[in-house]
Amino acid sequence: MQEKYDVVIIGAGPAGIAAAIYASRGNLKCAIIEKEMPGGQVNKTSIVENYPGFPKITGPELVEKFFKQLNSLEIKQIYSEVTSIKINKKSKTIMLKNGKTVNTKAVILAMGRKPKKLTSDHYKSLEGKGISYCSLCDGNLYKGEDVSIVGSGNSALEEALYLSKICKSVTVLCRSESLKGDPVLIEKLEAKKNIKTLYNTSIESFHGKDRILKSITLNQNGEQVELETKACFIFIGYEPATEFLKKLNILDNEGYIIVDSNYRTKINGIYAAGDVVKKEAFQIVTSVSDGALAAVSAIKDIQEM
Amino acid sequence: MQEKYDVVIIGAGPAGIAAAIYASRGNLKCAIIEKEMPGGQVNKTSIVENYPGFPKITGPELVEKFFKQLNSLEIKQIYSEVTSIKINKKSKTIMLKNGKTVNTKAVILAMGRKPKKLTSDHYKSLEGKGISYCSLCDGNLYKGEDVSIVGSGNSALEEALYLSKICKSVTVLCRSESLKGDPVLIEKLEAKKNIKTLYNTSIESFHGKDRILKSITLNQNGEQVELETKACFIFIGYEPATEFLKKLNILDNEGYIIVDSNYRTKINGIYAAGDVVKKEAFQIVTSVSDGALAAVSAIKDIQEM
Repeated sequence: MQEKYDVVIIGAGPAGIAAAIYASRGNLKCAIIEKEMPGGQVNKTSIVENYPGFPKITGPELVEKFFKQLNSLEIKQIYSEVTSIKINKKSKTIMLKNGKTVNTKAVILAMGRKPKKLTSDHYKSLEGKGISYCSLCDGNLYKGEDVSIVGSGNSALEEALYLSKICKSVTVLCRSESLKGDPVLIEKLEAKKNIKTLYNTSIESFHGKDRILKSITLNQNGEQVELETKACFIFIGYEPATEFLKKLNILDNEGYIIVDSNYRTKINGIYAAGDVVKKEAFQIVTSVSDGALAAVSAIKDIQEM
Repeated sequence: MQEKYDVVIIGAGPAGIAAAIYASRGNLKCAIIEKEMPGGQVNKTSIVENYPGFPKITGPELVEKFFKQLNSLEIKQIYSEVTSIKINKKSKTIMLKNGKTVNTKAVILAMGRKPKKLTSDHYKSLEGKGISYCSLCDGNLYKGEDVSIVGSGNSALEEALYLSKICKSVTVLCRSESLKGDPVLIEKLEAKKNIKTLYNTSIESFHGKDRILKSITLNQNGEQVELETKACFIFIGYEPATEFLKKLNILDNEGYIIVDSNYRTKINGIYAAGDVVKKEAFQIVTSVSDGALAAVSAIKDIQEM
């Protein structure tokens, strides 16, 4: 007979790993499913300075510590993508892309969210033109060059600061008339001599080929301006990784999972934690707390079954 | 003129330190007030295994890391006890035991909670009789001796495990017929040969002097039983450290501070975070998340002032 778990956690970012720690300490038989690599968006964060316990640590280093902790738990790690979840009377069946299925009493959804991609609806002609969604991954390709960033929130500003150490100059392209990130980040940005911000600026089209941009045609206050730049990094927001859940009817209109204050969805035995849940601040601290509390709810509900 | 802060955080435990990190990154002029030592209850925790990033760390070691991070921030640290808070039209005045006052736009309350003490209403004759509320502090005084613990929740079980390594034997005195802690802790407890649990057991009186117990008269299922034991450690629950707030009318009937989902109390510019707020799980992860979110609310409100 196929193995059956008490709880299966989908996603091994901070929320999923915290849920795993708590579920495992609650003596639940537990598995965690990850489609890429553990750590989620933290992998793509250059420097983390706001997670208590680590005054300054790189995202990948923090992930390494989280992953080490996950490995110390007696939890089955499954590396595949979930395609759907079937709700049975007393259990759930999780369907994986590798063709296998996993049976469980409870599911904690912690898939996180992904940066939004540009589409050709947004901008003309972007295929193959030196556009990146990860400065930590691709920044080094443009060492000593002039690069640009689209976005105005914390992630855009953090990446601009990171790139400013590697690249000759960074031009921040901001649609509105002011940046939206934390004041302390904006201050740091303004103190950097090789970062320039262009306000009220959107993109008309990219010019270049083979992952090397040549220039971008900008629309600045209605006027066309040409910007020479070797790469353009995009940080225009996020979308939760919840497409496969549409049929379950637990999503809001932006795709975030709707939960109560104890991280229960309206379906018995289905919980959600971390960046898949809409909240005031999408932070590592809030994700680990969500994950722990979702696991606490699952432990209680399973004990009462 | 006296210095005025944007936000003053009361309490330097995990919630207060997380709030300080976020408030400081939000560029607020910030002070933190602590009446004892930073770290709160974590100081009195022997081993922490459920804070993501640290698979296994002692409470005091984790506090050291939190404190180091606090010291790296440009935040005024004030060591005194708060006696009251006066709500003015556009600011708050915090009165300290050392006679000084602190003026601020906003206050984040993060005083945590303290273990409940035995009173002579509970038990007869306990003065000077080898009773302790902190096994990490006092356990070593009773190396190789027979000791006892009152309580049945996670903190009692964790302390029993800790003491079982130092002392000859540990007797857990449990009022009800079963322990209330996490299953994984109960299992560990049951696996220890030098820990014994007595169920349906309460205390009638203590016999001993000068911090050395001789014996305890127990009431076990209605019968008087004598237990020889050199120390008795008490873990019978907690009470929030909110006495000085009674006049503000923001407490529930157990003394916890009532907040909305963004950690705002009903008084403008007063927030609360961590163990002073009633919740499903009083954990380091939940406290750091509370602290961050309370600071995020304060930052927003102050920007809009």
